[in-house]
Amino acid sequence: MTAFDRIRAVFWESGRLHLLDQRRLPTVEHYLDCTRWREVAEAIRDMVVRGAPAIGIAAAYGVALAARERSERELAAAFEGLAATRPTAVNLGWALARMRRAHDAGADAGALLAEAQRIQAEDVAANRRIGALGAEHLPAGRAVLTHCNTGSLATGGYGTALGVVRSAYAAGRLTRVYAGETRPWLQGARLTAWELQADGIPVRLIADGAAASLLASGEVGAVVVGADRVAANGDVANKIGTYALALAAAAHDVPFLVAAPLSTLDADTASGAGIPIETRGAEELLSIAGQAIAPPDIEVWNPVFDVTPARLVDALITERGVVARPDAHAIRRLLSAPAHEEIP
Amino acid sequence: MTAFDRIRAVFWESGRLHLLDQRRLPTVEHYLDCTRWREVAEAIRDMVVRGAPAIGIAAAYGVALAARERSERELAAAFEGLAATRPTAVNLGWALARMRRAHDAGADAGALLAEAQRIQAEDVAANRRIGALGAEHLPAGRAVLTHCNTGSLATGGYGTALGVVRSAYAAGRLTRVYAGETRPWLQGARLTAWELQADGIPVRLIADGAAASLLASGEVGAVVVGADRVAANGDVANKIGTYALALAAAAHDVPFLVAAPLSTLDADTASGAGIPIETRGAEELLSIAGQAIAPPDIEVWNPVFDVTPARLVDALITERGVVARPDAHAIRRLLSAPAHEEIP
Repeated sequence: MTAFDRIRAVFWESGRLHLLDQRRLPTVEHYLDCTRWREVAEAIRDMVVRGAPAIGIAAAYGVALAARERSERELAAAFEGLAATRPTAVNLGWALARMRRAHDAGADAGALLAEAQRIQAEDVAANRRIGALGAEHLPAGRAVLTHCNTGSLATGGYGTALGVVRSAYAAGRLTRVYAGETRPWLQGARLTAWELQADGIPVRLIADGAAASLLASGEVGAVVVGADRVAANGDVANKIGTYALALAAAAHDVPFLVAAPLSTLDADTASGAGIPIETRGAEELLSIAGQAIAPPDIEVWNPVFDVTPARLVDALITERGVVARPDAHAIRRLLSAPAHEEIP
Repeated sequence: MTAFDRIRAVFWESGRLHLLDQRRLPTVEHYLDCTRWREVAEAIRDMVVRGAPAIGIAAAYGVALAARERSERELAAAFEGLAATRPTAVNLGWALARMRRAHDAGADAGALLAEAQRIQAEDVAANRRIGALGAEHLPAGRAVLTHCNTGSLATGGYGTALGVVRSAYAAGRLTRVYAGETRPWLQGARLTAWELQADGIPVRLIADGAAASLLASGEVGAVVVGADRVAANGDVANKIGTYALALAAAAHDVPFLVAAPLSTLDADTASGAGIPIETRGAEELLSIAGQAIAPPDIEVWNPVFDVTPARLVDALITERGVVARPDAHAIRRLLSAPAHEEIP
């Protein structure tokens, strides 16, 4: 870890999976310890752990926990139960498919744990590469605007969009980060502000609705977000509110950058229209921390992801290279490139 | 009042100004009674009463209260103190200028009270006319999206954008209203949802960030918002987040309509660049109802209005007529038209 990566949301220690309970941040730093896959599934569903890569990693550890029970039936239930926890992030299915391949190849509980740890370590390495590549793509001496939380809390460590922020700040290229608070779950206010503050990176919080004014002001040199799923044509599913940022960025000629590891790319989904968008309960909009903020019985529409069409994405930053103006051809080329080839 | 206008946020009764304390809605319905202009000024500053027309009306009553003290010095202090409460809504200065003209023409305390009551009654009448005109401009059988609160709570009564909603719903033209929750102060969640529910108009609450997805879905036939100030060229200052809605509406060919009485038009400000934009305290983003929702010492940027350029406004709905694609010429023509002439 560098100076700019002090947090681990998911880690394995002493035979248990430790999950930082992100529902209680920034007020309380509490870890849940999981020893059974069902606890992990519940933690993913209830957003103890969230963020596309972190969900995949936690699920992989969940499989490793299930494997300790030495029951093929329980293991099958774990694969199925973990896959059903949340629909939008493709990293979940990606990590589970990888764990299944390891299992099918004969991996025992120990080997499956090693595979989960490899998934996490590779994610951190990918994020560092994404950070380095993305930092070069940020205009120097400007601020960036980000959305939701895409940092160490959302990944194996370091972060995707926040990995770019970390690398850019370390390189002296960044004045400050504007973080959209990200209603309804407030990942920006509760998690990104907390995480960047912990790393000593200057951060300024805004209401999501203030982003268009901020982009109009000229202070921001780029919008950098993560992704929960990138379709084969480059459409990007990400936290609700991302699409509005992309529209506002386009209106003000501010580059709109998406940072995501290859595990977030979904070659099997042709376009954003095919990405399942999770809707969550009304309570996320009706109350905060137990305080009512709306009439209790009001109807709510609460989709928690949206789709940004590829045409609004100026660059997709992956560990295998940066794809300008991603489309189906460029995504195919990226996915078929040898692991260490740079996409020019 | 019709069936769709049950609420009064500002009213004069028994020698006192009654203000519904909007900070405590929807949980508590409590009225503050004001007998001194300084109480009114404090109530405006602290957002007991908010909404551009309601602020102007409350300030007018504040002058009437000051006049009862029979001190020219106190009255001068009232004009100055009330004008300084909030910077963006031009209705405040408009109402105070009108009260000053009445005073300069020799109005005593009783006549000034009558003038304030006329300002309120005319605002309600203007809103009913805006409602009728605007309802005809909504595509029938569709939903509308609105932002902030522009209803009886924000005006003398009936509302501007919500006046359009009320009239359209009464005419059977509207399926439902989507209300953006309107961070940071949650006017949409706390006030609009409550007000429409009280009137029996179907309302569905969304996070501000979900608006672009909603507009992409095709369910919404128009976006209807109010205004805090319309510049001479048609640029519109309104609650933060409005500009993002206008961009998303334009991207999906959904009409973007601004409903405002003539008292909101500011012929003396050439364009949106000249409109003072209020920024409010960090606490609006750092906590809700006393609950911390971000690290306590994080930096915040909290402008509470933004400017939507006139080119994104499909129609400006006033009590004197509907101006399609407002610009400096059309606004000048509207303001110089005889009061009862219809703008074609």
